[in-house]
Amino acid sequence: MSFFSFELDPALAADPVFDLHKRGKMEISCTVPLSSRDDLSRAYTPGVARVCEAIAADPELAADYTWTANTVAVVTDGSAVLGLGNIGPKAAMPVMEGKAVLFKQFGGVDAIPICLDTQDVEGIIAVVKALGPSFGGINLEDISAPRCFEIERRLDEALDIPVFHDDQHGTAVVVLAALRNAVALLGRRFADLRVVISGAGAAGVAITNMLIAAGLQGANVIVCDSQGIIHADRPGLTGTKAALAQGTNYSGRTGGIKEALIGADVLIGVSGGQIGESALAGMAPDGIIFALANPTPEVPPALAHKYAAIVATGRSDFPNQINNVLAFPGIFRGALDARATRITERMKVAAAEAIAEVVADELRADAIVPSALDPRVAPAVAEAVARAAEGDGVARFVARPAVPAALV
Amino acid sequence: MSFFSFELDPALAADPVFDLHKRGKMEISCTVPLSSRDDLSRAYTPGVARVCEAIAADPELAADYTWTANTVAVVTDGSAVLGLGNIGPKAAMPVMEGKAVLFKQFGGVDAIPICLDTQDVEGIIAVVKALGPSFGGINLEDISAPRCFEIERRLDEALDIPVFHDDQHGTAVVVLAALRNAVALLGRRFADLRVVISGAGAAGVAITNMLIAAGLQGANVIVCDSQGIIHADRPGLTGTKAALAQGTNYSGRTGGIKEALIGADVLIGVSGGQIGESALAGMAPDGIIFALANPTPEVPPALAHKYAAIVATGRSDFPNQINNVLAFPGIFRGALDARATRITERMKVAAAEAIAEVVADELRADAIVPSALDPRVAPAVAEAVARAAEGDGVARFVARPAVPAALV
Repeated sequence: MSFFSFELDPALAADPVFDLHKRGKMEISCTVPLSSRDDLSRAYTPGVARVCEAIAADPELAADYTWTANTVAVVTDGSAVLGLGNIGPKAAMPVMEGKAVLFKQFGGVDAIPICLDTQDVEGIIAVVKALGPSFGGINLEDISAPRCFEIERRLDEALDIPVFHDDQHGTAVVVLAALRNAVALLGRRFADLRVVISGAGAAGVAITNMLIAAGLQGANVIVCDSQGIIHADRPGLTGTKAALAQGTNYSGRTGGIKEALIGADVLIGVSGGQIGESALAGMAPDGIIFALANPTPEVPPALAHKYAAIVATGRSDFPNQINNVLAFPGIFRGALDARATRITERMKVAAAEAIAEVVADELRADAIVPSALDPRVAPAVAEAVARAAEGDGVARFVARPAVPAALV
Repeated sequence: MSFFSFELDPALAADPVFDLHKRGKMEISCTVPLSSRDDLSRAYTPGVARVCEAIAADPELAADYTWTANTVAVVTDGSAVLGLGNIGPKAAMPVMEGKAVLFKQFGGVDAIPICLDTQDVEGIIAVVKALGPSFGGINLEDISAPRCFEIERRLDEALDIPVFHDDQHGTAVVVLAALRNAVALLGRRFADLRVVISGAGAAGVAITNMLIAAGLQGANVIVCDSQGIIHADRPGLTGTKAALAQGTNYSGRTGGIKEALIGADVLIGVSGGQIGESALAGMAPDGIIFALANPTPEVPPALAHKYAAIVATGRSDFPNQINNVLAFPGIFRGALDARATRITERMKVAAAEAIAEVVADELRADAIVPSALDPRVAPAVAEAVARAAEGDGVARFVARPAVPAALV
């Protein structure tokens, strides 16, 4: 039903990507009948009033009798969209819609793209707090570092539903899964790995924290940013980077990426900055390189193979794609099924282990993670995450007393 | 895909209304294929990046290449839900979901229910402003008066998309449609009607303003609230009520509903307060009574018929139901099709005339408005509203220059 035919720019209309995006990628569907007067009086007034009264008496019933328990808001301020930078909320919408349809396709989650017209930390926090009752979870997306750390931490404290910044933790979960399998394939011990992470933005910080949480020794991890190695004596370190300096690089190594890589078993690039061959030459033999920048990896795959036994990228046109879609649909599916109040470190590690496990019996150097389309992944992740939520005591799915009979 | 089976309260599960509401009334659907690697690379990275860049270069393209041009946020703070009062955001969700599915069913509009965890005027305004880029329109719902007036006015000024408080204007549009047809059926002149509006909340204020905008003489309109007749000399009038006093009741009548109704042709009840027979007895003959409170009309229909030739209520189980669903789906359909920047008085009047016109050739005293299920209504309203938007210069649908070739 539309009375005006829109004239699309002919050059764009002929482009298959733009053609696909015409009018967007998603819509709302009703799941109840609305064709008779009786239908209307049940789904809307007057019938709906009794459902409202029941929820007013017991707010937990909202999870049973509204769509909120299956919904996630995909929230961005458009400040760090893909590799495009700060393109603002309107231009971010195609990515958020894409994320939302992946949530549905792979996790059965009803996700709503929300692009905010504010990039103020306090403003974003206030808006998302106010949106809380409308959703079962919050997926933060493409919000620039270091603002993303404070926004996520404070929303996680303020809300009683899961808050998850996918650029941090989704990436970290899939990196951990890939690293577990790479290590297994090479017959090495995870805890002994010497790892260099190039990039201290959202992904770099989360990967560092998660690998250490999963058993890597902080002493053997070195993080580099655009200024070089992060170490405790580097002047001007504050906030997140000061914390990184405390938890990594115990020997206090200094210098740039070349110095960092001397003797390293693993290089994880999440910076976009190119890393030259002379730096790679210092790595230990039989190493692992994950060069995850898109569209241009920090190390071209052909070059990476010269210095590493296993190579992964963020691109779909090379083997071993580190793709967040392996993580976020199943993580939220499991968190929503458990009605989790938050997503704990253990839930994330469980997600990584579940992803790795899916292909554990089929490992090859060019297949350390499942395909993004592998239908086994999301159910396995969801179950592992829900069990971990129960184990951590953050699952809210418990028997509730009956509603007062007067309301029925 | 869900790994935990939820035990619903057995008493509720056996109730057909609760059964219908289980897990909510709506879901998200993808409108693009997502089953191959190529599909993913078009709908998400890397393909989506070009669509983002095109919108960053020309933000108007967001209307062509995202779902936003067809979306409306149905926003409430839960402060005045149906006749239930201030039941808060969680308990308001079933109503907002109901509204959303009616939007889709009757207008083809993708509506998202948003229940806010704040009842602070400034907070609500800040949140909805921030949500602006994500939607093609804002439908405010069940926000208590007088807060609703300021919230709507300031959002209408701040946003470049339509902002419409349905409890005000949706009701007013359908009342005007019904009154037009009632007057036609009785062979009276609209402009000469002496009208009493009982109730000065959201609906009462909007009905008063709209009837005057449509040609009623303010001199002949009297508005009553719980304190009685609103007149310019009444002490303590502020804001909206002071404005009502200026624009109505030129003769300065005083007293209660009984005094107001002496010689009145029309009574419109939107207060919920009961109106006794002795007051009705003062009305002029061949009158019109719209007693719209739900579930208990201000005047029982049987009694109303004793004093009026035409009677309408808000209930679906009596003839002449004044139901907002006749208005809001078509109004937003038309506004979205015209990409209107706002909804003007003329667009609302056009909507009312379109609703009235649908049954103009079939008028009976017990059928002055179309049925809520009449499929002719929304398309007629949409077309009238879009034309009025063009006429008022608020339609944004204009030819645009081609996008820079570099982005294609």
